[in-house]
Amino acid sequence: MDQDPSGSPAVGTVDAAVVDLLGVLAYGELTAFIRMAADCDLAPTLSLKSQMGQLATTDYLQYQQLAEHMRGRGIDPEAAMAPFVAPIASFHERTRPRGWLEGLVKAYVGDGIAKDFYREMSGFVDEQTQAVMQSALDDAGHADFVVQIVRDSIRTDRTAAGRLALWGRRLLGEALSQAQAVAVERDAMAALLVGGGVDLGEVGQMFTRLTDNHQRRMTRMGLDS
Amino acid sequence: MDQDPSGSPAVGTVDAAVVDLLGVLAYGELTAFIRMAADCDLAPTLSLKSQMGQLATTDYLQYQQLAEHMRGRGIDPEAAMAPFVAPIASFHERTRPRGWLEGLVKAYVGDGIAKDFYREMSGFVDEQTQAVMQSALDDAGHADFVVQIVRDSIRTDRTAAGRLALWGRRLLGEALSQAQAVAVERDAMAALLVGGGVDLGEVGQMFTRLTDNHQRRMTRMGLDS
Repeated sequence: MDQDPSGSPAVGTVDAAVVDLLGVLAYGELTAFIRMAADCDLAPTLSLKSQMGQLATTDYLQYQQLAEHMRGRGIDPEAAMAPFVAPIASFHERTRPRGWLEGLVKAYVGDGIAKDFYREMSGFVDEQTQAVMQSALDDAGHADFVVQIVRDSIRTDRTAAGRLALWGRRLLGEALSQAQAVAVERDAMAALLVGGGVDLGEVGQMFTRLTDNHQRRMTRMGLDS
Repeated sequence: MDQDPSGSPAVGTVDAAVVDLLGVLAYGELTAFIRMAADCDLAPTLSLKSQMGQLATTDYLQYQQLAEHMRGRGIDPEAAMAPFVAPIASFHERTRPRGWLEGLVKAYVGDGIAKDFYREMSGFVDEQTQAVMQSALDDAGHADFVVQIVRDSIRTDRTAAGRLALWGRRLLGEALSQAQAVAVERDAMAALLVGGGVDLGEVGQMFTRLTDNHQRRMTRMGLDS
């Protein structure tokens, strides 16, 4: 491998927790890309197909940035992603949308939770990793078209509102339960928080913030949560 | 709509055939993106998932360029794509890969046929359309990883070789039969060739070239055609 001109640490010196973090973010983006692209099939119009495709493509490009960042630091992206294949597959397996609206809400809610997680974690990593994580956050706003569509749909179909509110709760529940499974398995990543001078109370507060933000997104779509 | 600073023709003056051509290319890219992204699920390794995702993303970005080009010329992309939804859906419906290798061969063969079609058509359109079509051709090479994988796979499994050769023939056959259905329906696009001073003999030669190039791609993968 070529010398990295930016003087980043060589293999072995990169914190195992950062490798884990990059791995889970990268595989999360790659899988979100595949799932969202597949959900384009459910879109009722060409314009919506195209907008959902935009979301999916953005996720792939973010995956690519993360993978390049890893390679540049001597981290093998596939090895870093491998531990997260099962929990992320399990999340998507348990949250297959049964229609276009569920797919839309999943895209919006999933995008939001992922961005919250990027934001929470970016305080605990080195500057280079921070920069690549920041670019995922800068891409915000692509998912905003979802809000109006969901609001319009539930205005004419109140049973949809109840069903989608339930769906949103399920998405959050499944995400948190997979996150917990990951935390138990991956000591290093869990220690990234705690070892970073964060006590368990603060970790609890982080989960409260994630949940609060999720509620806010649900409310924005007109869904009680 | 804002004045186009490049002085492109306004709505109405754009040839109906060019609108058709842009529509079929754009919808072809959008659909190829969705199908290839879905086929990522079939990939046996993370690295292959990632490479297939790259192909899919490139198709989306090309779709996006074509759609922007259309909007810049006052063409509504959705209206332009609409006539091609049924034949392209029908092509994909009739050529659903039954496994990873079939998906790979479809990606490679489809990419090749599409690029040949871009090359053939770019001689008949205005310069601006030519430029946006050229960028699809410049992106070549992403699909090349397929060749080695297919060659390696059939070395250890000769029945796969026969099956994939048959599959390749079917892909070409379905593509040509949908193209023919489109040509019958869309007078303007058919006239783009003939009206462009091309006689029917030359159209026949074009199909011969498409078929010859297809055979060459099959041979490159180690498949008799």
